[in-house]
Amino acid sequence: MESKKIKMSQDADDLKETLNDVDDGDSSLNTLTEEDIQKLISSSKEAMKYAYCEYSNFRVGAALLAEDGSIFTGCNIENVSYSLTTCAERTAIFKAVSEGHRKFKAIAISSEVKDSFTYPCGACRQVMIEFGQYDVYVSRPDSAWQHTTTQELIPHFFSKKALRSVQKAKIQN
Amino acid sequence: MESKKIKMSQDADDLKETLNDVDDGDSSLNTLTEEDIQKLISSSKEAMKYAYCEYSNFRVGAALLAEDGSIFTGCNIENVSYSLTTCAERTAIFKAVSEGHRKFKAIAISSEVKDSFTYPCGACRQVMIEFGQYDVYVSRPDSAWQHTTTQELIPHFFSKKALRSVQKAKIQN
Amino acid sequence: MESKKIKMSQDADDLKETLNDVDDGDSSLNTLTEEDIQKLISSSKEAMKYAYCEYSNFRVGAALLAEDGSIFTGCNIENVSYSLTTCAERTAIFKAVSEGHRKFKAIAISSEVKDSFTYPCGACRQVMIEFGQYDVYVSRPDSAWQHTTTQELIPHFFSKKALRSVQKAKIQN
Amino acid sequence: MESKKIKMSQDADDLKETLNDVDDGDSSLNTLTEEDIQKLISSSKEAMKYAYCEYSNFRVGAALLAEDGSIFTGCNIENVSYSLTTCAERTAIFKAVSEGHRKFKAIAISSEVKDSFTYPCGACRQVMIEFGQYDVYVSRPDSAWQHTTTQELIPHFFSKKALRSVQKAKIQN
Repeated sequence: MESKKIKMSQDADDLKETLNDVDDGDSSLNTLTEEDIQKLISSSKEAMKYAYCEYSNFRVGAALLAEDGSIFTGCNIENVSYSLTTCAERTAIFKAVSEGHRKFKAIAISSEVKDSFTYPCGACRQVMIEFGQYDVYVSRPDSAWQHTTTQELIPHFFSKKALRSVQKAKIQN
Repeated sequence: MESKKIKMSQDADDLKETLNDVDDGDSSLNTLTEEDIQKLISSSKEAMKYAYCEYSNFRVGAALLAEDGSIFTGCNIENVSYSLTTCAERTAIFKAVSEGHRKFKAIAISSEVKDSFTYPCGACRQVMIEFGQYDVYVSRPDSAWQHTTTQELIPHFFSKKALRSVQKAKIQN
Repeated sequence: MESKKIKMSQDADDLKETLNDVDDGDSSLNTLTEEDIQKLISSSKEAMKYAYCEYSNFRVGAALLAEDGSIFTGCNIENVSYSLTTCAERTAIFKAVSEGHRKFKAIAISSEVKDSFTYPCGACRQVMIEFGQYDVYVSRPDSAWQHTTTQELIPHFFSKKALRSVQKAKIQN
Repeated sequence: MESKKIKMSQDADDLKETLNDVDDGDSSLNTLTEEDIQKLISSSKEAMKYAYCEYSNFRVGAALLAEDGSIFTGCNIENVSYSLTTCAERTAIFKAVSEGHRKFKAIAISSEVKDSFTYPCGACRQVMIEFGQYDVYVSRPDSAWQHTTTQELIPHFFSKKALRSVQKAKIQN
């Protein structure tokens, strides 16, 4: 059997068809004003104060901007069984979704790391992309920030569309 | 090498010493009035409406009563990568902790299962006990309920005390 | 609306009907000989040497006895994002299942904790019960051990039966 | 306070300093011969047969090539509490690490999805990068494949270096 090496190419349609009720916009958005970005980063910094980080001693905060303008904050919440820890980003998303929000504009992330920007872990990236394409602002204690998007953070993300295609094929057979 | 079979016995001190700033009370608490229980169950039922359960089609709601009387609700929030799903109980706890609460009186849980009571999964039990001993009320759609406690749900739970004992010994050597 | 307080009672049928192709046996099993128990504990101790515990500095080992007599070992494998850590027990189970085993007789667990026995975390308990009722031996460095079972460790476990009942009802409507 | 927008740039040093005892090589590796790639993909396809996918009905297989040439296979192993599911990639990695391997050359992934390539979920990406930079081959049922690397899959990954920098600073103060 011959194998075919196929060029890697991000399927933009994947995002469009996959995410329910979510406007995915374009992949390079960055639609917030500098003022709004600073406000969101500031909320994420404040959220760090409630971090429950008994085991890592590492505080992270996040602030999620929902489509209607409301902001949901989150911090990391650790557990003696390390695997049951949640990160700041997921906490913020879970809070928002549990209050009926599923469309987001942006998320900001803060930590105590001084020399570099704290990007989300892989688990958070997968949870972030579940709700579509939106802006991500990662910040440093000195308020410098970098911009990226949920989609850029998890190229070729595993999508609902793929899962459904297999499930559908099996039901038909 | 001789082995010694030792009788299983729950170490009550474990709970006391393990949990930071948490009153563990006695292991059979159940301190809420019938009215408060019904109110909490009712909140947990309402929380089900925001469940994001694209993959299981199974709705769960939870309502967590903090020591100061405030209630935090949660629902299950699933993910295309099943492992990144969170349950209703954890969502409620994460919300409360991220708002500065770490002492709880009770949690109520609701689902659509008719013939039996929906008890928390093991992951939620471990997250629940991280914040000590409190009441757990599991309910059915007909509003019948059963009482248990965080400690009863995870006998001989893996504790911070054990983890610390090893870490301390290694630092000293 | 009147609520009914119902006595807590573990549904033995739940285990029987829930677990596919798994003999659940009785809830107090303990069928291994002292020699076999020591052998299994010994395997779990050895497994600790491969623990990847960069963040907790806490080593755990597990050894899982499959129905056909083969033994699968596991250790904890941590991750910089604490939540992506796996425990020794889950590692052993994942190894066995990925080699075609789904029926187990017993699991032994070892750690470096000297003064108490290391019981599984809630996440591992839920993964253990997925494959039915079997013996659990938790040990100390001095080779003393305690016996329990997968079912005792997670009373009123959340079962496949409950999940299916709701899914079925929805498909019919 | 003025914010500074800083150009996004992947810190190659991060990878080098972060990963213990791991050769990170260059970011575009792809060092396997076509024959070895096919062999690895073939192993990952075979591994699918043991998938325990009661809830998703979606089979995934993985095959991990360790530095010494040995291959470890994995499949997805689901759980009634969706969050305790593990994916094929993580199963393969956990198996290898629990047998003493921490340096890898490549991982191949297979699924039943016909129209597209199944890339790892975010959780698996974070576990993959914990052990450094190596090749990733994602395949389709028709044996076509795409190449990427652990690093490309999780740009700006959250690293041990950042975590340590904060922990160190706190101990010194």
